[in-house]
Amino acid sequence: MEKQLELREIGRRAADAERVLAGLPSMKKDNALMAVADAIAADRELILYRNKLDVDAGREAGLSAALLDRLLLNPQRFDALVAMFHKLAAMPDPVGRILSGTVRPNGLKISKITVPLGVIAMIYEARPNVTADSAALCLKSGNAVILKGGKEAINSNVALVNAMRKGLQNAGLPQDCVQLVIDDADHTRSNELMRLNEFVDVIIPRGGAALIRAVVENSTVPVIETGVGNCHIYVDKNAQIDMAARIVFNAKTSRPSVCNACETLLLHKDIAGFALLRIKERLDTMNVEMVGDEAVCGILPGVAPATEEDWATEYGDYKISVKIVKTLDEAIAHINKYGTRHSEAIITENYASAEKFIGEVDAAAVYVNASTRFTDGEEFGFGAEIGISTQKLHARGPVGLEELTSVKYVIRGSGQIRE
Amino acid sequence: MEKQLELREIGRRAADAERVLAGLPSMKKDNALMAVADAIAADRELILYRNKLDVDAGREAGLSAALLDRLLLNPQRFDALVAMFHKLAAMPDPVGRILSGTVRPNGLKISKITVPLGVIAMIYEARPNVTADSAALCLKSGNAVILKGGKEAINSNVALVNAMRKGLQNAGLPQDCVQLVIDDADHTRSNELMRLNEFVDVIIPRGGAALIRAVVENSTVPVIETGVGNCHIYVDKNAQIDMAARIVFNAKTSRPSVCNACETLLLHKDIAGFALLRIKERLDTMNVEMVGDEAVCGILPGVAPATEEDWATEYGDYKISVKIVKTLDEAIAHINKYGTRHSEAIITENYASAEKFIGEVDAAAVYVNASTRFTDGEEFGFGAEIGISTQKLHARGPVGLEELTSVKYVIRGSGQIRE
Repeated sequence: MEKQLELREIGRRAADAERVLAGLPSMKKDNALMAVADAIAADRELILYRNKLDVDAGREAGLSAALLDRLLLNPQRFDALVAMFHKLAAMPDPVGRILSGTVRPNGLKISKITVPLGVIAMIYEARPNVTADSAALCLKSGNAVILKGGKEAINSNVALVNAMRKGLQNAGLPQDCVQLVIDDADHTRSNELMRLNEFVDVIIPRGGAALIRAVVENSTVPVIETGVGNCHIYVDKNAQIDMAARIVFNAKTSRPSVCNACETLLLHKDIAGFALLRIKERLDTMNVEMVGDEAVCGILPGVAPATEEDWATEYGDYKISVKIVKTLDEAIAHINKYGTRHSEAIITENYASAEKFIGEVDAAAVYVNASTRFTDGEEFGFGAEIGISTQKLHARGPVGLEELTSVKYVIRGSGQIRE
Repeated sequence: MEKQLELREIGRRAADAERVLAGLPSMKKDNALMAVADAIAADRELILYRNKLDVDAGREAGLSAALLDRLLLNPQRFDALVAMFHKLAAMPDPVGRILSGTVRPNGLKISKITVPLGVIAMIYEARPNVTADSAALCLKSGNAVILKGGKEAINSNVALVNAMRKGLQNAGLPQDCVQLVIDDADHTRSNELMRLNEFVDVIIPRGGAALIRAVVENSTVPVIETGVGNCHIYVDKNAQIDMAARIVFNAKTSRPSVCNACETLLLHKDIAGFALLRIKERLDTMNVEMVGDEAVCGILPGVAPATEEDWATEYGDYKISVKIVKTLDEAIAHINKYGTRHSEAIITENYASAEKFIGEVDAAAVYVNASTRFTDGEEFGFGAEIGISTQKLHARGPVGLEELTSVKYVIRGSGQIRE
C-alpha cells in the first residue's frame, strides 16, 4: 500500500475486483489461497519484524498485557496463520451450492443457489491474525474485503496485506480483492466506510463493545454484529458437582479475555453450598476474584457483594459474579435479562431441565454439560471464523464460510407469463 | 387499540408476547391463525366499511388511481386475505427445523435449529393487506410484530388489528403478538421505532424508494431492505421473437405499479429492428409510452429519446425505456450498472448465453425465458411473502416463512472442556 486512496475509489476497486472473484471456479480461488500463503511465508521475517515494532510501540504506550498478547504474532501463531490458508483451500467451495429447487405447477424450474455476499468491510482492533483470517475466508467465499484494522497493529497489517496482495497477483487475481484502509484519529475514514452503501454490501465490526456500538449506530451498510459475550453457567440441583467445577474453571480461566468465557455463575440453592466451595477452590488456584449476591456472601463471608452492574458486565478478566437461584426458571429469567445472547450453559443430569433450558434460553449457542468456550468457528468445524454473531439476522453464532454467502434464485422457463 | 402507548411500552409488550409465542407448539399457532381468520371474517362488514372511509378520504385528498387501488379492500380481496390465514395454518412450521448437525471429534453433539427472529417491526404504506399478511406470517413463524402502516389506511388498519387481537385472545394467545403504531405527521414514532434495538430484532420497510431510504439511513435496528425494482428484459439475438413480445407485454403491462414489472427493454442489434416492431405493436394496445436510445429512435422516429435518468428509473407505470446493445456483455454491464438487483430476464434459445446471463447478472432473481413478474412469495411456493429483499444479508428475493427465522446452536455434551 503506497499513498492512501480516496475511500470511494477503494470501494470502486473492491467492487471491480469482486466482479472477477465472484465468477471464479473453486480451483482458481484455492490456488490463490495457496499463493497467498506462500507470499506470507516468504515475508515471514519482515512480517515478524514489523509486528515487533507494533508490540514495542504498544508496550511503550502502556497497553495492557492482554492487549499486547492479542497484538503479538509469535512464530507459532505465524505458522498457524499460514496453515489456515491451506486448510481453507482444502475445504468445499461455499459458493454455487444449490440449497433447494422446485418445479412449479406452471413448469418454471426454480433453484436457490449460493453466491458471494459481495464486498465485505471489516472494522476491528488489535489482532493482526484477524487481517489474515478475514482475507482468507473472504477469498474462499468469493468476496472482496476492505480491512480497517486498529492503529496498534498498523505495521503488522501493512506487511501482511502487502504480502497477500503479492500472492493474489502471483495467482493472476486482482490485488484489490484485499485492501487496507488506514484511518486518522478522528475515524473519518471508518465513518465514511460505514456509509459506503454504493460499494459495500456488509460491514462486520470485531472488537470491544464501544467499537461495535459505534458501527451499529452509524452504519447504513447492513451490519453483522459480533461478539459481546456476557456468558452464564447454571449449575442445576441435579448436576455432577465435579463436572460443574471442571467446566466453570475451564470457561472462566482458559482465556478470560475472549467473548465465550464465563462471566456469571448461577447455582441452584439445593447444591449451592457444596458446589460453591468446590468451584471456589478451583478458581482460587488462578486467583479469580469473586463477587456474589447476598446468599453467596452468607456462605463465603470473604466475597464482596455484586452490584446490579456486575450482572451486566463482561469482565474479560479473572473475575466472576455468582448468584444463587431458587429455581431453573429464575436462572433462565436471569440469563434472558442480563445475557448478551452469546453462549449459555446448564450443568445437569436431569433430562427435563436440559430440554427446558435449551428451549427457553435465547442465545446463539446453548450448552448442556460443556464449556461455553467451544463457541468458535474452528471448534464447530467451520475451518475458521470471521467473528461470532450475536444478532439474529443473517448469521447467529460463529460466522464461517457458509455465512459469508447470499443467495440468488435462478428461474428457467419456456415462455411462461403471469396470468 | 385505545389510547396510544409509549413506544418503549409497545416494544416491551411485544418482547413479552414473543417469549410466549416462541415456545408454542405448531398446533397452537395454527389454531390461533384460524381463530384470527374467524375474527376477521366476523368483522367483515365493519372492516369493509372502515376501508371505504379510507378510500373516500383518499379520493377526496386526490390520491392517484394506482394508490387508491392499492388502498382498496374489495370483497374479493377480503376473502383472499381470510383464506391466506388458513393456507398458512396448513403449511409446515418453519420453527424448530434441524438445519444441520454433527458430532465433533471430542463427542460434542452440535445441532443448528431454526428459531423465530423475535420482534419484527414493519413500516409500510397504503396497502391494508400488508397488515394482515405480515401478522399472519409473523404468527406462523413465532414472531411478535409491530405494525406501522400508512396514514391513508389508518381506519382499515385499526379495524383489522382490532379483529386480529380479538382472534388472538380467543385462541388464548397474548394480544400483543400483534400491535399497531399510529404515527404523527413528523414521523416521531417511526423514528423511535427504528432505534428501539432493546426490543426490536428486525425492521422491514415496504413501500416507495423514499420510505426505504429513510429506514436504511435512520435505523439502528437491523433492516431487511425490500422492493425497489428497476427490472430489465434482454432479448438475445437467438430469441424467439414471439415469446419475447409475449413476455415483455406481460412483464410491463400486467401490473405496472409493482416492483417486479419490467422497466427497461434491451435488444440485441441483430434482431432489434424486427423485435422492436413486434413488441411495440403489443405494447401499443395498452398505450405504453416508449423512450429509447439513438438507435431505437432511428428505427421508430416517433419514440422520444431516453435520458440517463430514464435508465435508472422505476416508472411503476405504462412506460418503458428501450436500448439496443451490440453484445450480451453490453446487456449484462447495463443491467449490473442500472439494475436494483431485483429481477432480470434474458430471452434466448442459446444455451451459452443463458448460462452466462445467469452467472454474471447480479440480482435476487435471474430468469431465462420467463416474465420477471414471477418474483413473488406465492408464485415461488412460499404461501405468502412479507416483502421482496433486494439486499444480500439474511434474505434475498421473496421473504417468506423460512426467512422469518434465525438459528440457535444446541450443543449437548458430557463434561467437555476446551483444551
